[in-house]
Amino acid sequence: MKNKRLVLAARPKGLLVKQADFRMEEVKLPALKEGEFLIKVLFLSVAPVMKFYMQDGAGIEAPLQLGDVMRGRGVGKIIASKNAQFKIGDIVQGKCGWQEYAICDGSPYFMMYKVRQRKLPYSTALGVLGMTGFTSYFGLYHIGELKAGDQVLVSAAAGGVGTTIGHLSKIKNAKAIGLASTDEKCKLLMEKLGYHGAINYKKENISERIDHFFPEGINVYFDNVGGEILDIALTKLKKYSRIVICGRISQYENSLNSSEYALKNWYKIGATRSKMQGFFIYDFEKDFNQAEEQMATWISQGKLMYQEDILEGLEQMPIALNRLFERKNIGKQLVKIAN
Amino acid sequence: MKNKRLVLAARPKGLLVKQADFRMEEVKLPALKEGEFLIKVLFLSVAPVMKFYMQDGAGIEAPLQLGDVMRGRGVGKIIASKNAQFKIGDIVQGKCGWQEYAICDGSPYFMMYKVRQRKLPYSTALGVLGMTGFTSYFGLYHIGELKAGDQVLVSAAAGGVGTTIGHLSKIKNAKAIGLASTDEKCKLLMEKLGYHGAINYKKENISERIDHFFPEGINVYFDNVGGEILDIALTKLKKYSRIVICGRISQYENSLNSSEYALKNWYKIGATRSKMQGFFIYDFEKDFNQAEEQMATWISQGKLMYQEDILEGLEQMPIALNRLFERKNIGKQLVKIAN
Repeated sequence: MKNKRLVLAARPKGLLVKQADFRMEEVKLPALKEGEFLIKVLFLSVAPVMKFYMQDGAGIEAPLQLGDVMRGRGVGKIIASKNAQFKIGDIVQGKCGWQEYAICDGSPYFMMYKVRQRKLPYSTALGVLGMTGFTSYFGLYHIGELKAGDQVLVSAAAGGVGTTIGHLSKIKNAKAIGLASTDEKCKLLMEKLGYHGAINYKKENISERIDHFFPEGINVYFDNVGGEILDIALTKLKKYSRIVICGRISQYENSLNSSEYALKNWYKIGATRSKMQGFFIYDFEKDFNQAEEQMATWISQGKLMYQEDILEGLEQMPIALNRLFERKNIGKQLVKIAN
Repeated sequence: MKNKRLVLAARPKGLLVKQADFRMEEVKLPALKEGEFLIKVLFLSVAPVMKFYMQDGAGIEAPLQLGDVMRGRGVGKIIASKNAQFKIGDIVQGKCGWQEYAICDGSPYFMMYKVRQRKLPYSTALGVLGMTGFTSYFGLYHIGELKAGDQVLVSAAAGGVGTTIGHLSKIKNAKAIGLASTDEKCKLLMEKLGYHGAINYKKENISERIDHFFPEGINVYFDNVGGEILDIALTKLKKYSRIVICGRISQYENSLNSSEYALKNWYKIGATRSKMQGFFIYDFEKDFNQAEEQMATWISQGKLMYQEDILEGLEQMPIALNRLFERKNIGKQLVKIAN
């Protein structure tokens, strides 16, 4: 049996990856060893951190070596198995890599979870019911310590993580305002995704619009971008606010020009007795099942909507990755690999 | 009976206050009303925040009006009382103001606490066994979540709050390194105040010296200064570090030149999944007694040393306040008002 895969051919330079940074290989799948199982990949996920794997690893995971299969999570169906824990027909999600078939053992490296059968597309296991949704859930509820009545500001609100923060806030009787780059995204945030309001940060005066929605300030800032928008948000903090540092996609650009943004209003954290905190989603692993169950229930009750942005075909993976940095994706960016 | 007091005569300009910003008044003490009591002030405390009361209030408390008695905490003895809760002979600490005699009622505004009789000078009620010590205690243990084995960096380590962080760390089997402005202060930190090491930030390369003491990085940064030293500390964070934002005396200077320091390495908070948090010491009020008891026990056991820097005479108050900004004080800056 043949497997197609994308390997790292060159370390990317600049904000976007190029086709030449990857090489498509077709290789024969080896026979399964004891403990291994074979996954037919259905969907693959992209995330900004993958740019770091390609470059220097960003201190979180080891960087990839040239010739390595691109690292990334996927969801797929087990079609052969020599592992009693993972049976033929099981749907799993974990580190599949950018390829059509993945051979895994059950070891922790692969972070492989069984996907519960629900009346929802398997793609949700990489989005709202996977790491993306868990990042929203634990980021907002645990790191953000969301309370009823809270005023929540969200950057990159139309991105994978941001798209669920509107409803997750509303469910707890909090009010979320989202920042997005186009009117189309802003409309979606308000009409489908539970946001009380939206700000087009490319066209509108961000500071004035925040004041308009939250004249008394904000309790939670869920930050997916960092940089200048974070700096503005710092001036809007009420006392005892929480800033959830989830991503800083704006800084991936700046770091290329060695012009990392310097934060002017950092001292507001002390002045308002607030908290700014980063987190690692796998620290919440023991509660993933509970979060998945809870969010699936809310989806079935119509309280939580999700949004996916799906390309098709393994060769689309570099394009999908670039869409994050071009801010083109609306919702969780995925690529469908097989039916 | 006559009372001498210092009132605000002019709003200060520049880093230091001037004698002309104050006016010494001698006034007749009015008769006590029902519920009031008269305190003979023994010691008064100074803190950087007082500069803000004189200027704009800094959003924490209302600014003073011209002609108001300067606001500040003191410790004193009750010499007359029409309040059943506060008896003649009681030692109390609270908002006495900059004066020789203070008339208080028991209302929350005065934040008046009875001082427990211990074999320690009453001055400690304003230092290690008062708000200054509580700030160290709750800042380090609660906001800083200190654990055994932690590597702790402290700025303004020879200041009021900083002087107790060395021993409070050591007691929990953590290791503290302090930053101070002179060799004399550095020596004191190591020889008396429980610090494992000290860095003279005026003379030494701060970054290199931190690496020397903590080659693997720091778990806790207890920040009393903000600005550039905070920026360096951010580059030394281990994963899941805690930055306790306690003060930012460096920025009081910069704000005068409208050149607030912009923080370059803010993104390290996300990258290391760390936490940066401010706090308000009165939020821990219900636990003040327990902290006072605990620290008094440690002092009696020789595990906790404290350091005070005491001037004498009410007229010295402006000089005492300036010493904080001139970084002259070694330990908690106090002024003795009466025996």
